[in-house]
Amino acid sequence: MRVFIVGLGLIGGSLGLALRDHELADEIWGAELNEERASEALQLGLADRIVPFEEGVAAADLTILATPVDTIPLLAIKALNRIGERGVVADMGSTKSELCEVIAQHARRDRFVATHPMWGTEYSGPSAAVHGAFTGRTVVLCEGDRSAPDALALVERIFRTLDAPMIYMEAEEHDLHTAYVSHISHITSFALANTVLEKEREDRHIFDLAGGGFESTVRLAKSSADTWIPILMGNKYNVLDVLREHIHQLQLIRHMIERDDREGLREMIDRANSIRRIIQ
Amino acid sequence: MRVFIVGLGLIGGSLGLALRDHELADEIWGAELNEERASEALQLGLADRIVPFEEGVAAADLTILATPVDTIPLLAIKALNRIGERGVVADMGSTKSELCEVIAQHARRDRFVATHPMWGTEYSGPSAAVHGAFTGRTVVLCEGDRSAPDALALVERIFRTLDAPMIYMEAEEHDLHTAYVSHISHITSFALANTVLEKEREDRHIFDLAGGGFESTVRLAKSSADTWIPILMGNKYNVLDVLREHIHQLQLIRHMIERDDREGLREMIDRANSIRRIIQ
Repeated sequence: MRVFIVGLGLIGGSLGLALRDHELADEIWGAELNEERASEALQLGLADRIVPFEEGVAAADLTILATPVDTIPLLAIKALNRIGERGVVADMGSTKSELCEVIAQHARRDRFVATHPMWGTEYSGPSAAVHGAFTGRTVVLCEGDRSAPDALALVERIFRTLDAPMIYMEAEEHDLHTAYVSHISHITSFALANTVLEKEREDRHIFDLAGGGFESTVRLAKSSADTWIPILMGNKYNVLDVLREHIHQLQLIRHMIERDDREGLREMIDRANSIRRIIQ
Repeated sequence: MRVFIVGLGLIGGSLGLALRDHELADEIWGAELNEERASEALQLGLADRIVPFEEGVAAADLTILATPVDTIPLLAIKALNRIGERGVVADMGSTKSELCEVIAQHARRDRFVATHPMWGTEYSGPSAAVHGAFTGRTVVLCEGDRSAPDALALVERIFRTLDAPMIYMEAEEHDLHTAYVSHISHITSFALANTVLEKEREDRHIFDLAGGGFESTVRLAKSSADTWIPILMGNKYNVLDVLREHIHQLQLIRHMIERDDREGLREMIDRANSIRRIIQ
């Protein structure tokens, strides 16, 4: 199988490595507009060769779109316009509603598989690609009933080989859920980093004590603007709903501390502790 | 050396293990009011025997207070009242201003060493104690100039042996800094957990996609109310200042998303990215 990966950064590059490591592809072609990143990707073995978008799509059995989410809907249409008879196109994006709306009426909609592997790190670009990505991490397949059975099966085979559990959802449900369990975490990390960096202007030693707890809550603040602005804007209304609720929760805590409301704090913390059900 | 540890939970218990592992104590005595926890601590080898507070303090070369921070000031006074000629008392608490104020005029103030090892996990109780704690983690020594040189040297020797870098601060500075780099992280985690748990009432599958990023930002929400209410209340004014600033940062982000202000979001994320200077 010849796989064509558009965008050889963290996600696309790691997928290239995974496909090779698990012998899921005979040939991996890539597209990368930035020349420096293109030669870096080749050097790192993320793809065998770099080809123009049109050439790659026409020649590939499977085209993977792994670019920032705001570029995916248009690339999806252009890819569907050019694939061969049995060609399949899948994306790796973190938002799905706009994408699924844009491709909905395309004559070849059934060759597309809307895919979101719930894996990532706070790093980006070809050098961020790692072996072993995706393994054990949930993959969301959106609107699977709109994909042809053979197209869906091809994507399922890849992630089954990578030992990634699959879950099936509508696009709207996906975007709501990712707002709660992924997008808001990035916003709180950005805000926490800036809260302390703001203080550093007047107190240069504020980070001297930064340790494990701080690191884990602020780690995602290293994530790139190029990746995250399109995600936050592409999922704007869900993200705003969650953000309003999150600010509300913080204001409740603030009022409890102001009023020495230890009872309220205890209920609040006991409730938060039940997150143990979810994460080990 | 005989060390007496008051409170054999996460911190006191881990210190007991560390003292034994590094042959820093010949005998470890402990105090633990709750009988179940006391026998658990003995079973886990966190201490050789459990004795009443008065007996332990009088017989020990070094008394360690590792109880919730709101109980420490009074225990510090009671311990200083009863120690032998060359006895030393140290605490392990996360807040220091009230403690240092309370002991300031005690006739034996110089036998006390205000100590905060910046280590912890989200677990609590004797069973949370682990080997290898504190190693490589910063320890803050507050008001070291108010401690007798031999008392300070004893505590320094322990943490030097554990390879924990030491840093010296006034109590007020310590409480301000820990509000920024530790206490606020716990608040954001509690709030984030409750934001998503709140949503779970209407949408039972909201956690199906919870993955790595969510886990790292919400991990601290498993921390116990018994530990954290005293810390948040004991550092109330610093915590409220940081919390107000943090809510302000979140509101800025919310307004940028509402207004499609991509420029503003880019500046905000680029600024947050500079946290890379601090955490690797």
